[in-house]
Amino acid sequence: MPGFKDRLAGVFAPVVTPFSNEQLDLEALRTVLRRLSATGLTGFLALGSNGEFKSLSEPEERRVLEVFAQERHDKLVMVGTGCESAHQTLGKIAQAKDLGFGLVSVLTPHYFAKRMTDKAIETFYLGIAERSPLPIVLYNAPGYAGGVAISATCLSRLATHGSIAGIKDSSATGPGAYLAALDGETDFAVLAGSTNFFYPSLHLGAVGGVLSTANYLPEACVQLHGLFRDGRFDEATRLHHRLARVNQVIVGSYGVAGVKAAMELMGYPAGAPRLPLTALSGPERAIIESALHQEGFGGG
Amino acid sequence: MPGFKDRLAGVFAPVVTPFSNEQLDLEALRTVLRRLSATGLTGFLALGSNGEFKSLSEPEERRVLEVFAQERHDKLVMVGTGCESAHQTLGKIAQAKDLGFGLVSVLTPHYFAKRMTDKAIETFYLGIAERSPLPIVLYNAPGYAGGVAISATCLSRLATHGSIAGIKDSSATGPGAYLAALDGETDFAVLAGSTNFFYPSLHLGAVGGVLSTANYLPEACVQLHGLFRDGRFDEATRLHHRLARVNQVIVGSYGVAGVKAAMELMGYPAGAPRLPLTALSGPERAIIESALHQEGFGGG
Amino acid sequence: MPGFKDRLAGVFAPVVTPFSNEQLDLEALRTVLRRLSATGLTGFLALGSNGEFKSLSEPEERRVLEVFAQERHDKLVMVGTGCESAHQTLGKIAQAKDLGFGLVSVLTPHYFAKRMTDKAIETFYLGIAERSPLPIVLYNAPGYAGGVAISATCLSRLATHGSIAGIKDSSATGPGAYLAALDGETDFAVLAGSTNFFYPSLHLGAVGGVLSTANYLPEACVQLHGLFRDGRFDEATRLHHRLARVNQVIVGSYGVAGVKAAMELMGYPAGAPRLPLTALSGPERAIIESALHQEGFGGG
Amino acid sequence: MPGFKDRLAGVFAPVVTPFSNEQLDLEALRTVLRRLSATGLTGFLALGSNGEFKSLSEPEERRVLEVFAQERHDKLVMVGTGCESAHQTLGKIAQAKDLGFGLVSVLTPHYFAKRMTDKAIETFYLGIAERSPLPIVLYNAPGYAGGVAISATCLSRLATHGSIAGIKDSSATGPGAYLAALDGETDFAVLAGSTNFFYPSLHLGAVGGVLSTANYLPEACVQLHGLFRDGRFDEATRLHHRLARVNQVIVGSYGVAGVKAAMELMGYPAGAPRLPLTALSGPERAIIESALHQEGFGGG
Repeated sequence: MPGFKDRLAGVFAPVVTPFSNEQLDLEALRTVLRRLSATGLTGFLALGSNGEFKSLSEPEERRVLEVFAQERHDKLVMVGTGCESAHQTLGKIAQAKDLGFGLVSVLTPHYFAKRMTDKAIETFYLGIAERSPLPIVLYNAPGYAGGVAISATCLSRLATHGSIAGIKDSSATGPGAYLAALDGETDFAVLAGSTNFFYPSLHLGAVGGVLSTANYLPEACVQLHGLFRDGRFDEATRLHHRLARVNQVIVGSYGVAGVKAAMELMGYPAGAPRLPLTALSGPERAIIESALHQEGFGGG
Repeated sequence: MPGFKDRLAGVFAPVVTPFSNEQLDLEALRTVLRRLSATGLTGFLALGSNGEFKSLSEPEERRVLEVFAQERHDKLVMVGTGCESAHQTLGKIAQAKDLGFGLVSVLTPHYFAKRMTDKAIETFYLGIAERSPLPIVLYNAPGYAGGVAISATCLSRLATHGSIAGIKDSSATGPGAYLAALDGETDFAVLAGSTNFFYPSLHLGAVGGVLSTANYLPEACVQLHGLFRDGRFDEATRLHHRLARVNQVIVGSYGVAGVKAAMELMGYPAGAPRLPLTALSGPERAIIESALHQEGFGGG
Repeated sequence: MPGFKDRLAGVFAPVVTPFSNEQLDLEALRTVLRRLSATGLTGFLALGSNGEFKSLSEPEERRVLEVFAQERHDKLVMVGTGCESAHQTLGKIAQAKDLGFGLVSVLTPHYFAKRMTDKAIETFYLGIAERSPLPIVLYNAPGYAGGVAISATCLSRLATHGSIAGIKDSSATGPGAYLAALDGETDFAVLAGSTNFFYPSLHLGAVGGVLSTANYLPEACVQLHGLFRDGRFDEATRLHHRLARVNQVIVGSYGVAGVKAAMELMGYPAGAPRLPLTALSGPERAIIESALHQEGFGGG
Repeated sequence: MPGFKDRLAGVFAPVVTPFSNEQLDLEALRTVLRRLSATGLTGFLALGSNGEFKSLSEPEERRVLEVFAQERHDKLVMVGTGCESAHQTLGKIAQAKDLGFGLVSVLTPHYFAKRMTDKAIETFYLGIAERSPLPIVLYNAPGYAGGVAISATCLSRLATHGSIAGIKDSSATGPGAYLAALDGETDFAVLAGSTNFFYPSLHLGAVGGVLSTANYLPEACVQLHGLFRDGRFDEATRLHHRLARVNQVIVGSYGVAGVKAAMELMGYPAGAPRLPLTALSGPERAIIESALHQEGFGGG
């Protein structure tokens, strides 16, 4: 069986969860997944930040996962299972396994942010890794997690555990420090969690990315990865800058509501976000449409 | 019926959730509630931050509330129901009502911290207040909520809604800006969320506090409130400083694990916290014991 | 000779530095000082944050101090001397002494914020206190100092040094933790650095305040201190809330430029700030005028 | 005359300022500059953060610059002139010109951090650029500047000014957003301010770096730039990781004191830092020595 680095190479879409009048719209989700399955994406992240997983009840999470189980096609599905406690997280990993999934991601706990020392984070992840029936991708996202971050030192210690497959890094800095610290580490997959640093991270050893842009521009993201693999760096840099500018407008200014609006513009029925997020206004959608056109994406 | 300011006056304990080997220990919770019910506390906060509510599964939350429903005695119970989405929160408020409770608190949503503008926070709370069958206490806790805070301007607008009973403030600054902005507002209860500023906040118009110290020193907290009411300010200041110093050691250094250790030292079976929190070491417990003794608490 | 607590009791104005077309306007400063000298203020802070001390060249700082030396009347002048290095700071303290001043304040160094551990801060202040010919008031202002703060533990150790007279606290939280930690400490003066918590801090043992509001409402600030001393707490609370609301509009929204605009409205020739700060627009000044009138200050 | 991008291409050392017993040691500085002049560095940054410029009095700054004027050899010297006010900064730029220098850098003002909006930063820099007799390199360093940062939008507007030559970026994220926003901008030089992202930034269009590692490993930094230019990317990545790991230990753990210790180990008389910074202990120096050896630098 190929190693983690090979299996996780490429681009993942952190798939959004469509809502309609505050209710789950699972048919829309099904359509989104079918369309994304026809692209060159490596896989999907179910119940990630872009999936508004924190805004779902536990029964709703399960219903979302059931749709992913039916609509995964040939894609690798990584299931977000991170909760504040190890106990809850292990429950969600068990559920993912029951539904037939083979890989999970686990966000750092962060409600007790001041207590989340390197030692606490290491203990938490090892406690899970020891008991998990599925391999785990660590998820570092200090912007969502009240500033809590996995340090490079902590990562070095966790990376040697056989059940820890890799890390998705959505910090502001990107995974450069991880890649330097891991130097020579075998079969640990580093995934960039933002278009801002996906391409330069590939030069440092990252194997792929989990990119919100892949929800609305999946083929462009896949193309960027291919240009890197082929050593066509000048073209890659130009495509990177185009995607980075689009990403800056959409996610930088509007977050998940922006991603959903961009998907609608590109023909994906992403629906509205759930309160406390609100759908974009008409003028805001026009800004996104303009940004996509200006960079040569989308449009008729 | 008395107004919110009268009903919420005094001291609430944000009751901890005892665990044993990572499992809920509901018998220990029952014992804690019985002992706290014999004090002069005004009420309990169930499923608050000190209750590690974020570390519980949804079925576990319900089991905890069932114990509170049986062991509330004459105390007013405020049920923590804050989730990331309005939809989830309304579900938990409905559950609280079903179990016979009459008051809930709702933490600010914060996973999408960058999007939590004043406008988003106002829309979120009004969306809930319009539909809630129970009065709501807002919960402002930027230290837990990735820096998200309810501004004084936003509070002024929310405070006039008939279903919004008050606010519990656990910011670093205390509720001074709220109390200045509310000046003259009728029947909106401001509760201090920390022993650090409980007493000085009373001088500015707060009616009470939700104090982690009330988990292990309930009578001292009640006494401080009484000294203020009686105008015995010199004695109040001295007692305040004693409690503030103890609180600094216990919560400032150790958080919820420190509160649980202090409760055990004072005879309450608070048990261990759940991972990612860990129980204190022997030397850490000795520091807490020494701090309590040094200020004349506990012992004997 | 009376102790530090007695000498520093009351209200200090952190006097602004008037500019005209980016140049020092020392005649305007002279007029401001003469008017403020006719009030019940205890003293002045020269070259504080409100004085834009960081925006002055070293020769300009000296020229400002020379005006203070001439226009101090019966007021106690505290001279801001805090620089990034102990070496520079000692040079500025020597200059203050040469000009006849008897008290200095020293802001925490903060350019190398990540290195400013408790130990580094303690070593810095002790290194200065050992060599300073004048008593020192510590200045804690994390909002200006990139988050660097003097901890309560560190303060406890510094407070026993004979050359350290007190602390001015301009943190967001106010000096409650210092006052709890100092309990019983003899002759160490705690000054509140913000109107937001000046009055409640008096209840905890602070002896006075250095208040930007004292630049434009000196008598109201002095009156608030008097009401506290006389035990007229209900009146004090009402006046506190009025000042806190005015302060929120002026400093909370506009900073030093707001203070200067408010002074102009109250008849003090405070002039404009220096770039990168800019003078308020007409509509912004109208908001300030309205806030002052609404609370019954200024006007007519 | 070649454009800014050509003139600023390559590696700059942000030269440290040696102290001995808290006093300037200008002979040591002279020796450091002579040794660094014999390397392939493009130039020096005088009076930068590594030069502890904030810890120097104005006369000391001048004395340091006089040594740079004498010991510049064939190197391009960029003089740090950033102060809190435009007025002071222009005075320092005039001084740099008087001493014969041709390029300055200007850090963002930050004491009034809350007021430093995009608009304020733009007004500040344009006010200087209009009056400056020398071209300016913007200096973005939120870690030193209390979180104040130049946004990509703001940079886009400033980059078109003829007197603004480029930007040195020492943020945590690196200059990726700037390079995306500048796409196609002619003759504006982007310099990476950290070894952490120097190499990947070259792939995005940066022309060079101002690297603290260049103080003690100048030739390795120059070599990394050369490998990039020659398209030898695999070797470059390996060298990058070695430098990044060394940098993480030295600057990440110890800051300027670490840089000075590393220089001493490599034979440069860098001396001690000035209080509030303190020289490393023996065990700390051993950690640095070990890190250098482990990566194959120094020693032997």
